[in-house]
Amino acid sequence: MNYKMIIQMLGQVCLFEALFMILPLAVSIIYREPDGFAYLIVMVFCILFGFLSSRIKVRNKTIYGREGLVIVSLSWIILSIFGSLPFFMSGDIPHFPDALFETASGFTTTGSSILTDVEALSKTNLFWRSFTHWIGGMGVLVFILAFLPMKTGSAGMRIMRAESPGPSVSKLVPKVKTTAMILYSIYLSMTVIQIIVLLFAGTPLFDALILSFGSAGTGGFAIKNDGLASYTNLQQSIVTIAMILFGVNFNVYYLLLRKRASQAFKMTEVRVYLVIIAISILLITINVAPLFPSVYEAFHHTAFQVTSIITTTGFSTRDFNMWPPLSQTILVIIMFIGACAGSTGGGIKVSRIILLLKGVRKEILMTCHPRSVKKLKIDGHSVSHEVIRSINAFIIIYAVIFVISLLIISLDSMDLVTNFTAVAATLNNIGPGLNVVGPTGNFSSFSDLSKFVLMFDMLAGRLELMPMLILFVPSTWKK
Amino acid sequence: MNYKMIIQMLGQVCLFEALFMILPLAVSIIYREPDGFAYLIVMVFCILFGFLSSRIKVRNKTIYGREGLVIVSLSWIILSIFGSLPFFMSGDIPHFPDALFETASGFTTTGSSILTDVEALSKTNLFWRSFTHWIGGMGVLVFILAFLPMKTGSAGMRIMRAESPGPSVSKLVPKVKTTAMILYSIYLSMTVIQIIVLLFAGTPLFDALILSFGSAGTGGFAIKNDGLASYTNLQQSIVTIAMILFGVNFNVYYLLLRKRASQAFKMTEVRVYLVIIAISILLITINVAPLFPSVYEAFHHTAFQVTSIITTTGFSTRDFNMWPPLSQTILVIIMFIGACAGSTGGGIKVSRIILLLKGVRKEILMTCHPRSVKKLKIDGHSVSHEVIRSINAFIIIYAVIFVISLLIISLDSMDLVTNFTAVAATLNNIGPGLNVVGPTGNFSSFSDLSKFVLMFDMLAGRLELMPMLILFVPSTWKK
Repeated sequence: MNYKMIIQMLGQVCLFEALFMILPLAVSIIYREPDGFAYLIVMVFCILFGFLSSRIKVRNKTIYGREGLVIVSLSWIILSIFGSLPFFMSGDIPHFPDALFETASGFTTTGSSILTDVEALSKTNLFWRSFTHWIGGMGVLVFILAFLPMKTGSAGMRIMRAESPGPSVSKLVPKVKTTAMILYSIYLSMTVIQIIVLLFAGTPLFDALILSFGSAGTGGFAIKNDGLASYTNLQQSIVTIAMILFGVNFNVYYLLLRKRASQAFKMTEVRVYLVIIAISILLITINVAPLFPSVYEAFHHTAFQVTSIITTTGFSTRDFNMWPPLSQTILVIIMFIGACAGSTGGGIKVSRIILLLKGVRKEILMTCHPRSVKKLKIDGHSVSHEVIRSINAFIIIYAVIFVISLLIISLDSMDLVTNFTAVAATLNNIGPGLNVVGPTGNFSSFSDLSKFVLMFDMLAGRLELMPMLILFVPSTWKK
Repeated sequence: MNYKMIIQMLGQVCLFEALFMILPLAVSIIYREPDGFAYLIVMVFCILFGFLSSRIKVRNKTIYGREGLVIVSLSWIILSIFGSLPFFMSGDIPHFPDALFETASGFTTTGSSILTDVEALSKTNLFWRSFTHWIGGMGVLVFILAFLPMKTGSAGMRIMRAESPGPSVSKLVPKVKTTAMILYSIYLSMTVIQIIVLLFAGTPLFDALILSFGSAGTGGFAIKNDGLASYTNLQQSIVTIAMILFGVNFNVYYLLLRKRASQAFKMTEVRVYLVIIAISILLITINVAPLFPSVYEAFHHTAFQVTSIITTTGFSTRDFNMWPPLSQTILVIIMFIGACAGSTGGGIKVSRIILLLKGVRKEILMTCHPRSVKKLKIDGHSVSHEVIRSINAFIIIYAVIFVISLLIISLDSMDLVTNFTAVAATLNNIGPGLNVVGPTGNFSSFSDLSKFVLMFDMLAGRLELMPMLILFVPSTWKK
């Protein structure tokens, strides 16, 4: 294990966190809030650590796969710890595990909150809280790789693979750095467009920023106690469309930029993703129609909620805790499915589900006709045995983490639906679940132990399990 | 598809069902109940169908894999249909889908019931209801293979593999027929021993038979409205021990008979099975102790309940619906784990869980040390790639069936915990779940559609998914 390289990378991460904190600092100056001082102090510490770590002399700059994974997981943990300090120091979230929970939930784009009264926070803290979504959406190491003059070679690809959601990262262009730059440019442009469209729809600037950070990163923190219920239908619909777009594999936008539209629209994953959304909206609309004054209203809120859940954003305009069991069951199922690989969304990912189902189909056909051997294909390319095996491993590891988390948080004696959906909402980076952790509830009543378990789940979910897991393998730490 | 052979085999199954019905007929004579007539009529029909089908001239006696699977699934469906007629005709279960549900639940050793007042049934029907557990425990086709002078060749092995629980069937001896004979002899002897022990503990003969059929087949139908609550602690403990023993891989008993005890006790699956039981009992006993007058009482009922659930029997002495969330969560988890492969129990099976976890461990180690390639081993034997792939496919198919079932029964608007545990209880062949379908509840409030879905789940669970699935593949039915 190359400890020196790891510390140096973590130092870089801290420098970037200090850079990001300039924005909440600016907000505190605009709104004349004293909370800016907390950010200033943290920034000084981050810069100090970053500077010191860069002075370490690293002779061996080689990074292997496991170093890449450890860098990713430790970066996200450090980001969350430093990021939570302003909440704690400003006194807005006085219990430290709560501040950490809220920040990890922000960076991992989960959006689960321990706040009972979010409106009590200062504008500065509200801004930082939602801005962590935007940072976490694309991943901070991708950002560093994009803008840092650094030679990483193949390790860069390893880090990017670990941080990017989905079973396989397709390099858009041969160079990792260029790929990262393209992705971040698309991400930034789309966010800016959403902000502008929201402003045109009469949204105040601050709210437009918060809503756009939340949908771009598929995060889900809101700044009102009723979530997004009090925004206009137009504003809600803009967010609906934005969420759908940010849940799409970003390769589509790259292909569109390159004017290869036909190739973009042929992507199986994106098609299946849209079909699942359409069917879910149809079924739930029929199911909840009696609860709304008109079918249009039912459709409007269903479309919002389905999109919000499948993209793992977690915004809400209505309390789906009160919806009938069929609707709740569909919402819980799409919690697990999640968005497309290569998007900012979480969950198991549509492409993994497709490959799993294709594998099942193959297995059933082989039982009927043992002599017919067919290769698994997606988008015309045959899928390697390696990918299939890693997807199977992913699902089993996912289930094991789920079950262990469920067992530990059951110690708090909450009801089964709360526990089940709390783990589902954090491991899939969604935000709200059902019952106690429903859209109008929050995670504050869990014990600190449970909160740490759920934080682990958020990080494991965001980093696609392996980086967080190998922290617990003793041989990882050998020299 | 060799239809003639299939019909001939189904005819044999009907003849055997008629043979089995001699026992309830005898019970009706002893208790002077008129319900015996219903059995007599059904027996006549079964014999008629069996006789007619045996007159069909079959030129091509070859059976391929898919024919074997279709024979298995159709046999179990026919068994359930004919088996349900006496309940329906005697008027004890006047709604036909309910009678079918109860019988499918019996043969598949599930033990889920639609009866609100089980004590209202005649002794004859109660006997037949529990006897179906005993028949279903070992499988009726295994029985036919054991006692029928029939040349099946490799198809026999295929049928046995389809009907026997677990990822791989180890032939005890080269001949399928002999293997089946040995298994049935062990099964019969163990059942007789349990009956005798229960009689010594002061159990009335009728109850001793019912309890033994229920534990031997890991079924779970009780004949009292309070389940097993009103039996003495001694009687309950005998059932606890019996359930543990019937949940063990039967190879162990074969090895013991051959005086290869050391080999028997080394079986990883059996050890893990016992460890899971011990840990679950420990955790739940601590958790529920405050609800009981003494720690011994808590331990006694916990041991009973854990054993009953993990072996997928489903008997109950206490309403675990009232137990705290941690205990309920553990019970739900062991519902999925299930008993050992090669036992009469259901669920995913301990051996599959072991292999899945070993696969995960291998995958994590390979991420840390990509060059270390290790083979998966269990009990000293390396596990073939084929078996691993089929286990992965099993889990995914299992999940897909689970989700689709959950969606359909959600239409009934029961709560999420009821729906989730109803599917878990039927697909894993357990019996009771939680809430509405808890130990003091039943499945009567589901719609007929849901009941048919749950019947499918019982059969799919008992026959390990594939036989029921290929009924829905169009190419299965081609000539």
